[in-house]
Amino acid sequence: MDVILHGDQAVLAPLVAKHPEFSSRITLRHADRVVTMHDKPAQVMRHGAGTSMWSTIDAVREGEAGAAVSCGNTGALMAVSMLRLRKLPGVNRPAIACLWPSRNPGGFNLMLDVGADVKAEAPDLLQYAIMGASYARNGLGLKRPRIGLLNVGTEEHKGRAELKQAQDLLAHAQDIGDFEYIGFVEGTDIPSDRVDVIVTDGFTGNVALKTGEGTAKLISDFMREAFGAGLMSRFAALLALNSLKRLQRRMDPRRVNGGVFLGLNGTVVKSHGSADATGVSAAISLAYQLAQVGFNERLAARVASAEAAGQDAAQVGPDAPETGGSPTE
Amino acid sequence: MDVILHGDQAVLAPLVAKHPEFSSRITLRHADRVVTMHDKPAQVMRHGAGTSMWSTIDAVREGEAGAAVSCGNTGALMAVSMLRLRKLPGVNRPAIACLWPSRNPGGFNLMLDVGADVKAEAPDLLQYAIMGASYARNGLGLKRPRIGLLNVGTEEHKGRAELKQAQDLLAHAQDIGDFEYIGFVEGTDIPSDRVDVIVTDGFTGNVALKTGEGTAKLISDFMREAFGAGLMSRFAALLALNSLKRLQRRMDPRRVNGGVFLGLNGTVVKSHGSADATGVSAAISLAYQLAQVGFNERLAARVASAEAAGQDAAQVGPDAPETGGSPTE
Repeated sequence: MDVILHGDQAVLAPLVAKHPEFSSRITLRHADRVVTMHDKPAQVMRHGAGTSMWSTIDAVREGEAGAAVSCGNTGALMAVSMLRLRKLPGVNRPAIACLWPSRNPGGFNLMLDVGADVKAEAPDLLQYAIMGASYARNGLGLKRPRIGLLNVGTEEHKGRAELKQAQDLLAHAQDIGDFEYIGFVEGTDIPSDRVDVIVTDGFTGNVALKTGEGTAKLISDFMREAFGAGLMSRFAALLALNSLKRLQRRMDPRRVNGGVFLGLNGTVVKSHGSADATGVSAAISLAYQLAQVGFNERLAARVASAEAAGQDAAQVGPDAPETGGSPTE
Repeated sequence: MDVILHGDQAVLAPLVAKHPEFSSRITLRHADRVVTMHDKPAQVMRHGAGTSMWSTIDAVREGEAGAAVSCGNTGALMAVSMLRLRKLPGVNRPAIACLWPSRNPGGFNLMLDVGADVKAEAPDLLQYAIMGASYARNGLGLKRPRIGLLNVGTEEHKGRAELKQAQDLLAHAQDIGDFEYIGFVEGTDIPSDRVDVIVTDGFTGNVALKTGEGTAKLISDFMREAFGAGLMSRFAALLALNSLKRLQRRMDPRRVNGGVFLGLNGTVVKSHGSADATGVSAAISLAYQLAQVGFNERLAARVASAEAAGQDAAQVGPDAPETGGSPTE
């Protein structure tokens, strides 16, 4: 893997120099300015040229880089990515997909959208399912991912109007999207082993993601307090160190670091702003893996064939034979 | 406390007979039928007369009972409650409020709506804030509760249109509602000590609640596996028993059992369907406490004065002096 590192040369050059073993693999690309966490997406779209974020995305646009990784401002990164990479043909709303610790053998489920857009209509949810299934095949190695639609209950009559419409769209798209649609799922099912990909709008997905993070943090703080209280407990915690470490590894948010932007002409991985070296490394590995397998071309082909099937269905009615998945995926 | 127990006399009478110490406090009220978990709310509204659920709510309607407790079908319970108790004057959408383990001194935050209605417009969110503040004063003993509006970020420009409108409504209603509005909060803030009451629509609230439950369950399962692996770990767990018990007590979902229906002419507490004796007991205690302090009259007065202030404001503009809170609360 080779890396193009975008940013202030005066800051980065000395840091890179400390690792001579990587010097042949790292190309510095100077940028005068940075996008801060306080910049609004709309401003960055207008005035962002010359920032390290803009330059990073442009490297993907020009085909110089196979994928982009950033720890910066999520809204601005999505805005710059949409502006410079453009949406894939047929995609209405791009999405951000994240991994979620789960009871499945692979250890993770996938959820999208977790914050690209605060709204999603039924056809958007269908595209999320198709894109999520493609990511699950290429990123998690699942042959025929099981898709669930996040709702407030599993009964068919529950939920908002767009979810009831999406229910039908997803059931009809199982073959073309090469996934199994399992119906509505609830918040309790997000980490379960009955589903691989959880589809929802970006508002609900973002709240769910942060609620899960907050709950995990609360429990780990309570655990620390509980084990810190009293000599006996501290001794026990010492004895239990291996178990606690194993638990921490399973739940470690750094291992699941990396939200993937889906639906653009290029792969962009968003690392958590507070990620440490382990976390950033996980995000870079993910970007590398997706670039290696040609994920974005596969995703584009899948979206295109779903789009074509949708148009056929609209012309000849829902009984038209469904075409198979694209041979590239 | 006296109890009116609604249900099949043939089943309940022998159970009650096992506790002669309570016999003078329990009145059996026979009902031929029950509402099942599979019955749809609309059906129960049409054909539910004669069920134990209907009879329970009617006891509140007739003033025989100070509050109702049920472990049954939530949707049906809300439908029957709305039909038989009717909404409080001025309330558009009733809400379900739940407690959430938190870092606050009292140990709990409050969130609403967690599932009464899948939608909420800005004026509904304002009513949730007023009702939630009243519940926090009467149920949690907080003098001037801090209210946060759940969103995907804390910056003012983020989120859906109705949230931006609600932002202004809540800021203006702080005096009349006797709460402090702290602005947008995120999923990570739900258990935090910077907020007491989290206001959101019933779809988002329900997903957040169940996501929190699912995350806590996943971690506790992982913990059990981690501590079950190896003799050393089991020995450590034994030593740490007190700490683990203390932790469990803090996180125990049974201690927070009881969703309260707000905005009706009567108090209804919904216990979790899978609650055990400890859980049901917590729900009954909560109902008793709310009935004791005359919570529903206080809530009604608060909603009425907010309604009056809203009309005044609409007539004379936003600069009209705000009237104080109702003297009954």
